[in-house]
Amino acid sequence: MRNLTLLTDFYELTMMQAYHHAAETTGQGQRAVFDMFYRENPCGNGYAVAAGLAQLIEYIKNLRFEDADIAYLRSAGAFREPFLNYLENFRFTGDIHAVPEGTVVFPGEPLVRVTAPLAEGQFIETALLNIINHQSLIATKAARVCWAAGSDRVLEFGLRRAQGPDAGIYGARAAMIGGCHGTSNVLAGQLFDVPVRGTHAHSWIMSFDEEITAFRSYAELYPNACILLVDTYDTLKSGVPNAIKVFEEMRENSIPLTLYGIRLDSGDLAYLSKRAREMLDEAGFPDAIISASSDLDETLITELKAQGAKITLWGVGTNLITSKECPAFGGVYKMAALSSDDGPWIPKIKLSENPVKVTNPGVKTIYRLYDTATGKMKADLITLADEPLSNREDLTIFDPLATWKRMTLSAGAFIVRELLEPVFMGGECVYPDHPVMRIREYAEAERETLWEEHKRLLNPHIMPVDLSQKLYDLKQMMIAQARGR
Amino acid sequence: MRNLTLLTDFYELTMMQAYHHAAETTGQGQRAVFDMFYRENPCGNGYAVAAGLAQLIEYIKNLRFEDADIAYLRSAGAFREPFLNYLENFRFTGDIHAVPEGTVVFPGEPLVRVTAPLAEGQFIETALLNIINHQSLIATKAARVCWAAGSDRVLEFGLRRAQGPDAGIYGARAAMIGGCHGTSNVLAGQLFDVPVRGTHAHSWIMSFDEEITAFRSYAELYPNACILLVDTYDTLKSGVPNAIKVFEEMRENSIPLTLYGIRLDSGDLAYLSKRAREMLDEAGFPDAIISASSDLDETLITELKAQGAKITLWGVGTNLITSKECPAFGGVYKMAALSSDDGPWIPKIKLSENPVKVTNPGVKTIYRLYDTATGKMKADLITLADEPLSNREDLTIFDPLATWKRMTLSAGAFIVRELLEPVFMGGECVYPDHPVMRIREYAEAERETLWEEHKRLLNPHIMPVDLSQKLYDLKQMMIAQARGR
Repeated sequence: MRNLTLLTDFYELTMMQAYHHAAETTGQGQRAVFDMFYRENPCGNGYAVAAGLAQLIEYIKNLRFEDADIAYLRSAGAFREPFLNYLENFRFTGDIHAVPEGTVVFPGEPLVRVTAPLAEGQFIETALLNIINHQSLIATKAARVCWAAGSDRVLEFGLRRAQGPDAGIYGARAAMIGGCHGTSNVLAGQLFDVPVRGTHAHSWIMSFDEEITAFRSYAELYPNACILLVDTYDTLKSGVPNAIKVFEEMRENSIPLTLYGIRLDSGDLAYLSKRAREMLDEAGFPDAIISASSDLDETLITELKAQGAKITLWGVGTNLITSKECPAFGGVYKMAALSSDDGPWIPKIKLSENPVKVTNPGVKTIYRLYDTATGKMKADLITLADEPLSNREDLTIFDPLATWKRMTLSAGAFIVRELLEPVFMGGECVYPDHPVMRIREYAEAERETLWEEHKRLLNPHIMPVDLSQKLYDLKQMMIAQARGR
Repeated sequence: MRNLTLLTDFYELTMMQAYHHAAETTGQGQRAVFDMFYRENPCGNGYAVAAGLAQLIEYIKNLRFEDADIAYLRSAGAFREPFLNYLENFRFTGDIHAVPEGTVVFPGEPLVRVTAPLAEGQFIETALLNIINHQSLIATKAARVCWAAGSDRVLEFGLRRAQGPDAGIYGARAAMIGGCHGTSNVLAGQLFDVPVRGTHAHSWIMSFDEEITAFRSYAELYPNACILLVDTYDTLKSGVPNAIKVFEEMRENSIPLTLYGIRLDSGDLAYLSKRAREMLDEAGFPDAIISASSDLDETLITELKAQGAKITLWGVGTNLITSKECPAFGGVYKMAALSSDDGPWIPKIKLSENPVKVTNPGVKTIYRLYDTATGKMKADLITLADEPLSNREDLTIFDPLATWKRMTLSAGAFIVRELLEPVFMGGECVYPDHPVMRIREYAEAERETLWEEHKRLLNPHIMPVDLSQKLYDLKQMMIAQARGR
């Protein structure tokens, strides 16, 4: 297990020392609530898929400053001995609540809520953001790609272009959560027990004098997973005819053709796949798979399908593993409340000239409201954590920026679900370990609660994320107070 | 040390087994030469900065399949016992040549050349690409950002938006190689002995009732590195006046103002920095630093400078650490030659409809040609590895796609330098460990060998990368042969 304790911005440590120093001199510690949330769905999507919680848990569990870390910090010159001594026994002792991985989430919602001594809550900011931002980004991108592929299978093929080993490993994990059916990444397969896939590269073909010999050798060794790469020399004149020849030889030798077919990796995929389909069908191989991989993304897959491409297995690399069009998630971590020792929570707000950038103050939670009849999501409501919410009375909710946009849900006609779940309590992890393939199933069910209008790639319908009247009033009051300052 | 042996695409292993199987059955092994190169400079830059070699070395040194890895592969169902036994004692036994980290490189040039038994050379493809692609991307992006900043300092601030921990850690390393002056990433600081920087966040201000109290407390604890964040409430009405007040108090108390100033993190940075400069100057603080951080990149820095912004320290986050505009480097790994046991090298070529995608066959090296008088780079020449090249005779080089573009260098008027250096020989590392700050210096000197026209951000002058006559002839012959196939 790597020690990622120093995976943090330097200013977290300078602030932490200052908080520690203040607590020591005043004899009074502060506790804080921080919310991790984001402001805009990546790639213009209608929602995001939360991911990365398991790695956040691992990080928190393993937080400890080794002697070498403390010696390093001492050498930096900015830290005093009392603080360095405090770091020696540093553990995370707070509470963390989070939405489960695979949950469909929306801008402004706290995906993670940290309640801890101020220094601890502050310290974990950077790593928490790094982990959740990355995996939520890739899970969301994968959901887009898989939506475009419809009932076809999508494989994650991006390791060679990922931004370092972790981006490949955890990117593959997140891609599986977002809906991919397998990955080429063997280490991700081992770590997360997810399907790994792949056959051969151009170099395999080039290591033989003849393409047909390369195909034949491959088929001999891997008759049960025989997808042949047909574009090394000439796809339609050489690759596909040679592949058909090998499949015919297998048929003649009574080798069962179970999982077999071709892969296109260059050229006009629409045209080539249609011609290849005809050739394979004519030769009596209607169940031969045609797979493709070549700078694909959700837009290109949609286009290819619109052109009637005969591809049913999509290998998606660079554009998925980097979320090329939008390579950062933009999650932030903001203080929402503060208390001195056992005092009451004092809500905190961060102002901005831009109304959507003003934070929501106080200790909050998220309720998801579903339509009882259809099971589809109607809206999310952010409330103060101690506000009860029942579906036994009519509920009127309203848009916090355009307050005339109101909707009343009738008693009994909606279902209420609280999204935040306890993950750490008093520094102890209370959250179960979920296998990635189980999270993937859950994420799929989550997307099923959305209408197609929320899932489309371009200009999706916006899901209402409203504030309770109490939270709305608190926020307005605090804005007015701050402006009067 | 993490075991990254399984950090590979599944198809590397299926091909590897097949190569191993063929060698066992024929009693004859094959050796191969693979080139790692890229086809297009990222972000429209005029060059790229090679980086990541140290991590590639670490990966190769640590290559070994643990029992758990072999058990996992056995469970995958595709591998036979003779191959799994072979993996038990697998080590890399080949040669690797590479350009030093920090070297300015161009499309088509082999940054890494691997000469090894076919199975070994094939196996390391994915991890090699992952590592070199990522760091070369970020080093190149950093070079762009630092070029825009001119003589100002640039700090890497992107950890929270990096694509996972490694992207933050090795991204910071690459950013330093590309020219950054420090990073916020403490772990990168510890691992690579590079300067770490940072002061405080908005949450620090929000943890106090008054901004001035927050500033005062910070200045008390950190008088020697006192950069105050001034945009929490109102930059010009509250933040800058409060900062000035604290600096005045420090002056009154005879606390030396060594490294001090303000940070702007939102709003109109051009306007705010100019007004803040005036206010600081009027108060007698002309050496107070004005730093800024807010979705910056090379374009925005150029714009801000054109508007006369008074910023001299730039904190660059998301756009640098993800290379947002172009988040993948696109390096590829192609077979260039093959031999059976001790036989001669047979050059290999990969064709494509697109002329720039046709690979260069054979065992090659790169010579860099400098003008003796100015020390500036004139051109690169890719040759076969056994071709001698001397500056004692006139040298005529030509563009391999537009062969009428010719240039003659006069004997003595140019200097020849071979770029590829031995890194592994017979599986043993023969390459010294270079400190990152030393690589950074070297990279800076490398960029000095380019004219400004090659370094500008938009439409830079293209550096000629030519082929020797012998290599050109070989390539043409092989293309003709393959087309006649």
